[in-house]
Amino acid sequence: MSFDALCWRSGRLHILDQRRLPAEEVWIEASTWQDVAVAISDMALRGAPLIGIAAAYGMALAQQSGDGLGIASKGLGATRPTAVNLFAALERVSQANDMLAEARAIEEDERSNNDAIAAAGASLITDRTSVVTICNTGSLATAGVGTALGIIRRAFQLGKIERIFACETRPRLQGLRLTAWELQQDGIPFQVIPDGAVAPLLAGGEVGFAIAGADRIAANGDTANKIGTLNLATIGDAFQVPLVIAAPTTTIDTRSSTGADITIEERAAEEITTIDGVRVAPEGCPVWNPAFDITPSDLISAIVTENGVHRPPYAFEDQV
Amino acid sequence: MSFDALCWRSGRLHILDQRRLPAEEVWIEASTWQDVAVAISDMALRGAPLIGIAAAYGMALAQQSGDGLGIASKGLGATRPTAVNLFAALERVSQANDMLAEARAIEEDERSNNDAIAAAGASLITDRTSVVTICNTGSLATAGVGTALGIIRRAFQLGKIERIFACETRPRLQGLRLTAWELQQDGIPFQVIPDGAVAPLLAGGEVGFAIAGADRIAANGDTANKIGTLNLATIGDAFQVPLVIAAPTTTIDTRSSTGADITIEERAAEEITTIDGVRVAPEGCPVWNPAFDITPSDLISAIVTENGVHRPPYAFEDQV
Repeated sequence: MSFDALCWRSGRLHILDQRRLPAEEVWIEASTWQDVAVAISDMALRGAPLIGIAAAYGMALAQQSGDGLGIASKGLGATRPTAVNLFAALERVSQANDMLAEARAIEEDERSNNDAIAAAGASLITDRTSVVTICNTGSLATAGVGTALGIIRRAFQLGKIERIFACETRPRLQGLRLTAWELQQDGIPFQVIPDGAVAPLLAGGEVGFAIAGADRIAANGDTANKIGTLNLATIGDAFQVPLVIAAPTTTIDTRSSTGADITIEERAAEEITTIDGVRVAPEGCPVWNPAFDITPSDLISAIVTENGVHRPPYAFEDQV
Repeated sequence: MSFDALCWRSGRLHILDQRRLPAEEVWIEASTWQDVAVAISDMALRGAPLIGIAAAYGMALAQQSGDGLGIASKGLGATRPTAVNLFAALERVSQANDMLAEARAIEEDERSNNDAIAAAGASLITDRTSVVTICNTGSLATAGVGTALGIIRRAFQLGKIERIFACETRPRLQGLRLTAWELQQDGIPFQVIPDGAVAPLLAGGEVGFAIAGADRIAANGDTANKIGTLNLATIGDAFQVPLVIAAPTTTIDTRSSTGADITIEERAAEEITTIDGVRVAPEGCPVWNPAFDITPSDLISAIVTENGVHRPPYAFEDQV
């Protein structure tokens, strides 16, 4: 199953406000590119591929309103620094005459990319097993079935999934709020775990794969993804649980030769110190809140794109 | 600095309700052993040494009221299964004629144990460095300066601490709520991190030690401690950051020969799916919520007790 987290209707971009999920389904109507920029930076929507699609529709709104397209592109590009899909989509849509048609084409492409990723990734799972994942990489993060969650969906249809363990993914709890919501709707057996429970889970021997998405993949395969992914990779390495990264090629940034070239966004302390508006930390409590981490390519067993399964050593300057 | 999380006054045990911290300082007045049992099982107080002390005062309340002491001991012993200090304290107080005097003696002993642990542990830190810790192991978890946090306090006084990184410690956020509160009061420089940020933190090379407490230590050194400790140990092993465990000998259970003999408490789903009464997960969301994990002794660089620094191979049946 998949559903839409964005919808273009009557000249507006309707955005499902993911901050309100799973409690309620509230839609934001964006009629200007600035509305879209705010929705991205405030994380009403998130997920690297979805950010790219939304930004493309933002450009279509700018064109429709007769706004300066250079300013719109800069403004949308300044919302979040790590997901490279954002910049890829802005570049692509900026070269088109009909930006709305191009935004729709980008969305369609990401949808079929996901189907190809799902099919290729599911082929990696030969024996029925449990899988651990992090953050949300499903229909709420992409168009279509998702990246890592798309693989999980396909593998489940093929009878290969025993159970999914979803890391709750602090600070924003995308695993607990969003992935749980998607898995529930699909009837896939799952349990949410605190991020601190990864090691005893993997030590237990029940989990055959860790599968995660990506926000940016460097040419050598080093991967920026949601904070907690390097925990999964390092602990997986210790307990022989291979990490598979799933992302469309729009997530690959050949201009970053290694992970050292990738900018990591640090977000506000309040994401950690307050939860749903309730303060849980002492006033003035200092935090370190990096939104992403970099997993070195030697901890990544495979990278699955719409072009198929890539194995190390990765050299994406040649393959994409 | 240290302060009291428990206080005996006018025939009652006053218990600082840690669930309300850091927002407000509320004290529970326990006048029966059952009040104490509820406070322990509902986690108004927590921390292995403090649980032991509270249970001892619970027995003093039972004796004072003329309640059946066998029933009281069983009731208090059934509150939480993992922290062995609980059983050690109940055993010790049950052999005394004046249970109140014995409870006070247990509290005093734990206080001086902490001072000895702090001194021995601080000697391990030779060069000024940053330290990562988990959960709360300070005055709110013990009597006196704390175990792991006692070492940190002593090392800070000696000028050996650059900065403390406190894992927020989901699900109950003892790091974010309690350790941050204690460190703030002591003026020790710190940052709270999400549990998912351990690997990029340790990969950064700034952290010289991971120091944690314990809820039960088996004879071979395998250690049950707050969920997230095995993450720290495994990731620390990958990035050459040694893990030091700090606990009084009352935490050592020579009847458990290895970690496999230790019962791990699983707690309610609501600890994860709701935060301060606000539901954050979809209704019916299944979770795995083990309160503790077991770190095998080969991932523990040193165990510090009031008797000094123990190094592997650990064999506590001979040393305690």
